[in-house]
Amino acid sequence: MIYFDNAATTQVYPDVLKTYTEVATKIWGNPSSLHNLGSQASRVLEASRKQIADLLGKKSSEIFFTSGGTEGDNWVIKGLAFERARLGKHIIVSSIEHPAVKESALWLKTQGFEIDLAPVTKEGFLDLAKMAELIRPDTILISVMAANNEIGSIQPIKAISDLLADKPTISLHVDAVQAIGKMPLSDFLTDRVDFATFSGHKFHSVRGVGFIYAKEGKKISPLLTGGGQESDKRSTTENVAGIAATAKALRLALNQFEAGQSRLLAMKQVIADELSQYSDVVIFSQKSNFLPNILTFGIKNIRGEVTVHAFEKHQIYISTTSACSSKAGKAAGTLIAMGVSQKIAQTAVRISLDEENDMSEVEQFLTIFKQVYAQTQKVR
Amino acid sequence: MIYFDNAATTQVYPDVLKTYTEVATKIWGNPSSLHNLGSQASRVLEASRKQIADLLGKKSSEIFFTSGGTEGDNWVIKGLAFERARLGKHIIVSSIEHPAVKESALWLKTQGFEIDLAPVTKEGFLDLAKMAELIRPDTILISVMAANNEIGSIQPIKAISDLLADKPTISLHVDAVQAIGKMPLSDFLTDRVDFATFSGHKFHSVRGVGFIYAKEGKKISPLLTGGGQESDKRSTTENVAGIAATAKALRLALNQFEAGQSRLLAMKQVIADELSQYSDVVIFSQKSNFLPNILTFGIKNIRGEVTVHAFEKHQIYISTTSACSSKAGKAAGTLIAMGVSQKIAQTAVRISLDEENDMSEVEQFLTIFKQVYAQTQKVR
Ligand SMILES: Cc1ncc(COP(=O)(O)O)c(C=O)c1O
Ligand SMILES: Cc1ncc(COP(=O)(O)O)c(C=O)c1O
Repeated sequence: MIYFDNAATTQVYPDVLKTYTEVATKIWGNPSSLHNLGSQASRVLEASRKQIADLLGKKSSEIFFTSGGTEGDNWVIKGLAFERARLGKHIIVSSIEHPAVKESALWLKTQGFEIDLAPVTKEGFLDLAKMAELIRPDTILISVMAANNEIGSIQPIKAISDLLADKPTISLHVDAVQAIGKMPLSDFLTDRVDFATFSGHKFHSVRGVGFIYAKEGKKISPLLTGGGQESDKRSTTENVAGIAATAKALRLALNQFEAGQSRLLAMKQVIADELSQYSDVVIFSQKSNFLPNILTFGIKNIRGEVTVHAFEKHQIYISTTSACSSKAGKAAGTLIAMGVSQKIAQTAVRISLDEENDMSEVEQFLTIFKQVYAQTQKVR
Repeated sequence: MIYFDNAATTQVYPDVLKTYTEVATKIWGNPSSLHNLGSQASRVLEASRKQIADLLGKKSSEIFFTSGGTEGDNWVIKGLAFERARLGKHIIVSSIEHPAVKESALWLKTQGFEIDLAPVTKEGFLDLAKMAELIRPDTILISVMAANNEIGSIQPIKAISDLLADKPTISLHVDAVQAIGKMPLSDFLTDRVDFATFSGHKFHSVRGVGFIYAKEGKKISPLLTGGGQESDKRSTTENVAGIAATAKALRLALNQFEAGQSRLLAMKQVIADELSQYSDVVIFSQKSNFLPNILTFGIKNIRGEVTVHAFEKHQIYISTTSACSSKAGKAAGTLIAMGVSQKIAQTAVRISLDEENDMSEVEQFLTIFKQVYAQTQKVR
């Protein structure tokens, strides 16, 4: 089996699962309980928070746990909107945001907010000048992802940070779900960034755990109100085992970042070089300013699903451009936003590599690619 | 160690954790992925949903997964409010609801809703007549828990169902987090109930997984918007391992319900009988219409925390009345709502038993109780 769908989800690392089961078995008290089973759990929770904060170069008090990337995005977007509605009701998100951001922003229209979608270039990068034009005195939030999940384009967070340097009333949110462990932290977690979203299962942690970074002093209304956990900002009995596992997974992901980076890039490059030899292949992911692990392409006139299923027969797992749009059969929103025609966008498939992949898998993939390309020749 | 704090959280059953780790290791695909790792995961997800639906006597399409009881409560309360705001902005919740319900309702005040807290009797039961008086033409939702988490009082869901039989525009929500596995389903999941909330870690599943029942045709606005999972009602990559574990835990909990019921009741009765011999003990949990596993009492003039810590020295774990209010040092909201004075309410501690407990633990507890009572005599 060759798993090239790591942007959809990753397999939990055995060591991470071990941490999970150990904590679930031994440190299972409710952190809010007054007795020492509670304080034990609370200590593990806070140690995990500190580990994550340290890894990100942030304070423990700036890290809040969630159930995943979607909750993080919803919380920041809606929570900031509710918190600051009196100061302004205008929000800008890029036109290539993950639905967790985009749909959250669009939902806010029902609550009287105005949403602008900032356009991207035909390569898939935020058009900074056009975004700057959208800024209004009542703009309270700008949300731009660190790296796109459908094609891997890296967004200009540093440039956005500079642009917003003298606009303190606008909060800046960065969806870092695909970026963490794949890009230098400093490229997307600048001092100007107020909020960032992370999701554990994208870096080999267990499913259902994520966290947000929320800069000290930056307030958002809670999405989950209740018992007062997470400094009264996100209530529910804490998933201590999942949180400890996620802290461990983050450490592993960041530890291997340097070495992994060049390996990923090398693998991606071999695939890109080879695929570009085929006349009917369109490559959507460029070389520079793209994640080292994501390569999105299409075979002309062949729908993405068909390509995915052709590879699946050989136990090679790739994806149409995002797992969540797959079933809906929607063409990749990012490509459409880039101005790619519906017809070409529908051919798109995404390869997303990972530290666990190696060059021999890349070679097998390319051998099978040749077959798939030949098979589809008659319908092209 | 004697763990009598099962209403705060339970230890995950080894078999349930085994299901979790097996699924996390073997069926780790993203259910939304088009390839067969995705469809495998999707099948496990749907099988788990069907198992839960069958156990509750409901349809699969009426079960939606969440990250726990708090998310379920928030989702139903806020989601219904946003969905039906145009039809009315009045909501009634009982005055002894868990903060996940109460704070969600109170937060809605910031969005222009009017909230009434329905009073309870001095025994801790909803005052049905008084609640009926609160109903208005613009009432869209009534939320009453099946059983209270602080003292265990069982609420009259059947009577509320009858009261609302001819009021189809009012949705009825039941927080069943403490009730499931401890009360007959038919006592709180009547045909009139539109929404109910459940949380896995209260019945020996893993932390961070819950579900809601939402009656066919009853719409609520999503709380987590995004990729469109859970029929576009609750987005995020599904925690398939946690969900499979929760389905298993629910089966185990309901299987042992009949037998467990009488054992729990017998243990609780022995404790209640013995404690009532002590002149300075006040028992808040009555005998009839109370959960078989919860017994809340206080030693006069001794703050709950002091009692909790006295037992902790003997590795006996009990709680002030709810885990989440413990740290805040707040007196039990339920007791205050019952009209108990602040001074007496502050003495309250909660014993919450479980299928895993046995009579020998009860006896040890009572032996230690005698010591604790004697030790505290001088300060009383
Ligand atoms: C960029 C981005 N944001 C948010 C999410 C949502 O994360 P989760 O599935 O953990 O809710 C994903 C992945 O699905 C993503 O790729
Ligand atoms: C009655 C009740 N509702 C809701 C909750 C919240 O559940 P969770 O901790 O899973 O968010 C709890 C427990 O804390 C509870 O006892």
